[in-house]
Amino acid sequence: MPGQNVIKILFGISVGMLMMTTVPAATRQKTERDPAIKAIRDVLDRQVQAWNRQDLEAFMHGYWHSPELTFYSGGTIVSGWEQTLTRYRNRYQSKGNEMGHLEFKEMKIELLGPSAAFVRGRFYLKMTSGESSGVFTLTFKKLAGGWKIIHDHTSTA
Amino acid sequence: MPGQNVIKILFGISVGMLMMTTVPAATRQKTERDPAIKAIRDVLDRQVQAWNRQDLEAFMHGYWHSPELTFYSGGTIVSGWEQTLTRYRNRYQSKGNEMGHLEFKEMKIELLGPSAAFVRGRFYLKMTSGESSGVFTLTFKKLAGGWKIIHDHTSTA
Repeated sequence: MPGQNVIKILFGISVGMLMMTTVPAATRQKTERDPAIKAIRDVLDRQVQAWNRQDLEAFMHGYWHSPELTFYSGGTIVSGWEQTLTRYRNRYQSKGNEMGHLEFKEMKIELLGPSAAFVRGRFYLKMTSGESSGVFTLTFKKLAGGWKIIHDHTSTA
Repeated sequence: MPGQNVIKILFGISVGMLMMTTVPAATRQKTERDPAIKAIRDVLDRQVQAWNRQDLEAFMHGYWHSPELTFYSGGTIVSGWEQTLTRYRNRYQSKGNEMGHLEFKEMKIELLGPSAAFVRGRFYLKMTSGESSGVFTLTFKKLAGGWKIIHDHTSTA
């Protein structure tokens, strides 16, 4: 639960942006020690920063640029990087929609091997029209281009 | 899509039950060769069989018996094996509810290391009151007791 067993840490000033992250203390400590977990957290931090400057293409750098990328949400399957980008554009950049302000919370990054991991967390999206929130599960693989999301399953409250 | 690029294979007669599975031919071939993928498929086949004889406790054998098991669905988080069982009981065994007939389709089992894997697929649930369907992502780990689901993310159409 937000506020329980978590501490707020001033993470740093990056690209002129003051970024607050809320993570369990134990996770933060483990994160700092493991370079793989640190690298994955960096991917997600960059995604949030990209989203919040309305840069969907930069946000998409976190995903595997492959037709094999899969995005599951609300019972439906989107296959492919291009198709995932199109889904985001339709939902957040089309007429009458907006990207809003994104925050990830309660992230748990767990390594599953030297080149695989999965991430659980909650997302909160604030828009002028209201708020949206839900949970996500991301499967990460360490590829030639670094750690990438190869599968995303998101469900909304 | 069901019916496209898939073939129906008569999988076998098990516990007096004729079981049909629908999987891509390439996946099926890979499955037969890799003992880890075979073992994970067996866990899921046993889950479906248990569900369809209304044996929720046997169905739960597929999950890691730990307070650290997580079950994400429709934007919400359930933590713990006992809590996950309670969720299933409340939704499918309480007054006015039924378990119905479960089927998994389009399963993709992918190894992420020697002791980790993830599974993507669709579920179809037929009840007298109607049908329900959706998609799931399962994170598996090979533990002392065999391959177990340590995280389930399910979303309904």
